[in-house]
Amino acid sequence: MKIGIVGGTGKIGEGMAMRLSQIYDVLVGSREEEKAKSTCEFCRNSATERGLPCNLKWVSNQDAVREADVIILAIPYKHLDSTIAGMEGFEGKVVISPINPMEKQDFFIFTPPAEGSAALHLKTLLPASARLCVAFNNIAGSRWRDIDEELEYSVAVCGDDQAAKVMVMDIIDRISLLKSYDAGPLTMSPVIEGMTALVNNIGLLNQMKNVGIRFV
Amino acid sequence: MKIGIVGGTGKIGEGMAMRLSQIYDVLVGSREEEKAKSTCEFCRNSATERGLPCNLKWVSNQDAVREADVIILAIPYKHLDSTIAGMEGFEGKVVISPINPMEKQDFFIFTPPAEGSAALHLKTLLPASARLCVAFNNIAGSRWRDIDEELEYSVAVCGDDQAAKVMVMDIIDRISLLKSYDAGPLTMSPVIEGMTALVNNIGLLNQMKNVGIRFV
Repeated sequence: MKIGIVGGTGKIGEGMAMRLSQIYDVLVGSREEEKAKSTCEFCRNSATERGLPCNLKWVSNQDAVREADVIILAIPYKHLDSTIAGMEGFEGKVVISPINPMEKQDFFIFTPPAEGSAALHLKTLLPASARLCVAFNNIAGSRWRDIDEELEYSVAVCGDDQAAKVMVMDIIDRISLLKSYDAGPLTMSPVIEGMTALVNNIGLLNQMKNVGIRFV
Repeated sequence: MKIGIVGGTGKIGEGMAMRLSQIYDVLVGSREEEKAKSTCEFCRNSATERGLPCNLKWVSNQDAVREADVIILAIPYKHLDSTIAGMEGFEGKVVISPINPMEKQDFFIFTPPAEGSAALHLKTLLPASARLCVAFNNIAGSRWRDIDEELEYSVAVCGDDQAAKVMVMDIIDRISLLKSYDAGPLTMSPVIEGMTALVNNIGLLNQMKNVGIRFV
């Protein structure tokens, strides 16, 4: 299975590329060829040092969408509209949104668009046949890149296409010690995205780093 | 310190009374004297069997508010307005809202009022000097009553009065293995309340019972 990471050279995208390329063929998408090349080189070196497999190549964001079976949109909310605008090839594809609309003032604040969440907004931008799921929202970006550390978190997954959700949950359960949980339809996305502001505040106010969640 | 539980004979209220009366003076409030008496008797018997202390008495909901230092509103959202209407004595008191507006259709759905959460709505009903905090939202009701079992959950607490929040966090940290976390201002309440619909869905869809949350 080919996984395309749109925004694959950002902090989260790069860490996802490192971990996913041990298991899947990964397409690291970027607006800038140089950045994508350097991310791929960094991932390959990191894998080689550790004797790990590493199947990845750099592509444009558009080609990450076009060539992949599963697309992860590893981009900040503020770049969502401009990144999606004019892109083709989402039809029938599984699309994963880990996007959290959020601002930091004194505290982190969940700042969803009128639709209620980034994912519900994204749904209006994608073709109807795109199989949108929400996942990976509550894992701190820098934890993805700590490749020698396990990710021992729960991952709430929501979406309206059950088969797509099962595929996404299977991917999650193959990454480190992540454990996926079916959290229901896409209308649950405001809670899942909002929880990222919550865990960020909990980190900020309780002297903790990279706070995550486990369902018990 | 006296803790008054409004709705102290409901499933959650009764479990809270059992656990809190080992540590604090608890006022079990109810609309119905018979129910309050029977809850108190049940709690006392349960404590006696286990050789535990049990400091509680039954009162009306109004007296639970009037006599207590800290008030827990252990009532369903649909009864919030009618319970608060005409009540006196909230001035200067610490008020804890564990209330989650929620409906069950095929899935659990977070159904907040126009203000964004039960707590933000409650704030408009209370006098300005009431010191409102949100806590205990994501712990399954029946777990409170499993008095022989530890509660090993994280509890996110939000509110705009820092001293009140510290008092509430101290209470939480004395109950079983609960661990409190400062989650910021009252504007975080939509996320904390919404998480209850989320953990309910996770239970429903992943064959789990009484799902709770730990921040890690």
